[in-house]
Amino acid sequence: MPPKGNAIIGQSGGPTIVINASLAGAVEAAEKRDEIETFYGAIHGLTGVLDEQMIDLFREDDEVIRSLKTTPSAALGSCRLKPKAQDLERCMEVFKAHNIRYFFYNGGNDSQLTCHLISELAKSSDWDMQVVGIPKTIDNDLVITDNCPGFGSAARYASACVQFAAKDAEAFGTVEVVEVMGRNAGWLTGSVLAGRLDDYMAPHLVYLPEVDVNPDEFLADCRAIYDEHGYLVVAVSEGFSFADSGLATTSQKIDEFGHARLGGVASALGDMIEDELGVRARSDTLGNLQRCFGWCASQVDIDEAYACGVDAVNRSCNGETDVMITIQRKSNEPFEFETETTSLVSVADQTKVVPPEWINERGNGVTQEFIDYVRPLMTGGGEPLPTDLPHFPRLRRLAVDRKLEPYARTK
Amino acid sequence: MPPKGNAIIGQSGGPTIVINASLAGAVEAAEKRDEIETFYGAIHGLTGVLDEQMIDLFREDDEVIRSLKTTPSAALGSCRLKPKAQDLERCMEVFKAHNIRYFFYNGGNDSQLTCHLISELAKSSDWDMQVVGIPKTIDNDLVITDNCPGFGSAARYASACVQFAAKDAEAFGTVEVVEVMGRNAGWLTGSVLAGRLDDYMAPHLVYLPEVDVNPDEFLADCRAIYDEHGYLVVAVSEGFSFADSGLATTSQKIDEFGHARLGGVASALGDMIEDELGVRARSDTLGNLQRCFGWCASQVDIDEAYACGVDAVNRSCNGETDVMITIQRKSNEPFEFETETTSLVSVADQTKVVPPEWINERGNGVTQEFIDYVRPLMTGGGEPLPTDLPHFPRLRRLAVDRKLEPYARTK
Repeated sequence: MPPKGNAIIGQSGGPTIVINASLAGAVEAAEKRDEIETFYGAIHGLTGVLDEQMIDLFREDDEVIRSLKTTPSAALGSCRLKPKAQDLERCMEVFKAHNIRYFFYNGGNDSQLTCHLISELAKSSDWDMQVVGIPKTIDNDLVITDNCPGFGSAARYASACVQFAAKDAEAFGTVEVVEVMGRNAGWLTGSVLAGRLDDYMAPHLVYLPEVDVNPDEFLADCRAIYDEHGYLVVAVSEGFSFADSGLATTSQKIDEFGHARLGGVASALGDMIEDELGVRARSDTLGNLQRCFGWCASQVDIDEAYACGVDAVNRSCNGETDVMITIQRKSNEPFEFETETTSLVSVADQTKVVPPEWINERGNGVTQEFIDYVRPLMTGGGEPLPTDLPHFPRLRRLAVDRKLEPYARTK
Repeated sequence: MPPKGNAIIGQSGGPTIVINASLAGAVEAAEKRDEIETFYGAIHGLTGVLDEQMIDLFREDDEVIRSLKTTPSAALGSCRLKPKAQDLERCMEVFKAHNIRYFFYNGGNDSQLTCHLISELAKSSDWDMQVVGIPKTIDNDLVITDNCPGFGSAARYASACVQFAAKDAEAFGTVEVVEVMGRNAGWLTGSVLAGRLDDYMAPHLVYLPEVDVNPDEFLADCRAIYDEHGYLVVAVSEGFSFADSGLATTSQKIDEFGHARLGGVASALGDMIEDELGVRARSDTLGNLQRCFGWCASQVDIDEAYACGVDAVNRSCNGETDVMITIQRKSNEPFEFETETTSLVSVADQTKVVPPEWINERGNGVTQEFIDYVRPLMTGGGEPLPTDLPHFPRLRRLAVDRKLEPYARTK
């Protein structure tokens, strides 16, 4: 069994609508465990560990912690740090200085790799520390787990947006192209088809990044749909590409992980369709709101995120380490799940794309199996919205005393 | 008193979240009036009149009409037609052929001009017809009326989006630039400041199209805010311009009214701030969803839109014509209003911009008077969202028999 000591949790990568629900779950579970003496929050993820910027989560108001369940975006702050060897060594110094025996990191596949590297270093440094990853991504691209907390709410928002934008296009008899997040995996883009609750409804054409689109087929399909319905709604992933040209819509800029920043696909495709059909095309890019628009969160997603936080703490206290929490689907109607674990190395740096058999033959939509998989994850809780505008409680962020010299970050 | 006869209603210009509430109000009021024998809906606004594409609204299901109160976008279809003299003559032929004695047109200042031209032509043609305009615009730029149905819901959505996007920027300690609709009038852009319910909250800087921004002051303000708060949220109107250069972000394309299509301001400003501050800047363009995202409608806006529809019918039956319905604010807390009228000529083709005294001295925000004016209009009804995805009843659209030869539209 692991020793008594302190715990720390960090939030990493792009925020989601429910990442704070995992934080709430972890804190509420830790309050009940004797093994955890103090629970630190790392400010801006791993950079907060490097800089000893940590807060005492047990001194936060219980009501504020509870309200994190429905507070979107990362309340501790997030980062996109790919730690170098020297950074990892520094982390170990901080863990030792603060007697940190439990490390929780809430993020996607990059973050689970970070988690694994820390776990390995702890072992080789003879520092007895439990390391548990908590899954999070709107892209739903982590392997092994049935789905990722963060995805269901983003899917519900994106799907609702497409339905509303479709009403606008229908009113004018025009073309609407909606750009959905997703660089390599089309889970979020495909999920907007789950909003097509009746045959007469939009969206009509949906393109995942897994498909290299034939431009002639693309325009032929656009024309056929427009001629049949008198309007056209197309949803595309930001990673959309044509089979021949690849459509140069990637900007010159590079993000913190060395990935090219995406954007501009919907607008470029809108222009192309407008030229071909002679009908006005509008485009909308759903953008960052997919990971922060908290007003139509999926209740299933909130429940999953919370459960992952709870389970990460309990499993670590029971001696599990070097694992990530996973979701196991038990039934679809009603949707039921359990939490399990998998080794960090099994998920680190891996990407789960949509399997080819869940994409339709023409490459312009998804199959019923895909819909049956995503729809339960997009279920709302039926809670009334506030009559006022969004307003969320704030953490007090009481700082933990520093014990080390300031760290000179590697460039 | 006007003669008994048939009525027709059309929806014009950009749809809004509540334009169908006006339609519901008009139909429900007309059902109670003996003066109106049959109530036609013009499909795609005035183009439906020209083409005799009209449906019988009295044969729609009562429940569907009622549900229009909360169905976003234009259920009859909309258009952006600026009628020529020949088009207006054709309208008169259609009105006479179908004994249309009541004409209602729901739109912005362009549409109120159309309404007035029709009223004038009816008078000079000795055709006894009551003509009443129903106000609608998300831009809130109609003169005389206290505010415009469509604005409050768009303002509530835009303001919520800015709050959520601000949480995302805060989590990363980065810059977020949000682009809000509004070519010439900054009502919608300014309204996002009403979401700043506490001093510590964002947005920090808000630029209306009424202000020619000094680029040096702009960057200085961005830097000062970022240094103070560790993140920065800027909201700009799509009509944003710098005092010297005007910032060329207008596309080459022209809309149906000859206006240049806007777009790209947020992205351009984000790049500029990123270069200056050395901090990553993201941008989001709220786009068409401002006029169709029905899930966080303002209840005050729905009530106003419905009341305008009801009142248009009742006043026309009581003999008023060549007028537009207006909103008169009676009190702010609780918000109360009455409907009144003004002559069509007083509102046609006029634009109400934000008065200079409601913009702060630095030109980077609005005054408390502005906030006190807009906030009551952004109040939600506290209704629970559906647990499922958006799904709206459809009109049956039973067509009225044509009585004329097809019309060869003027180019």
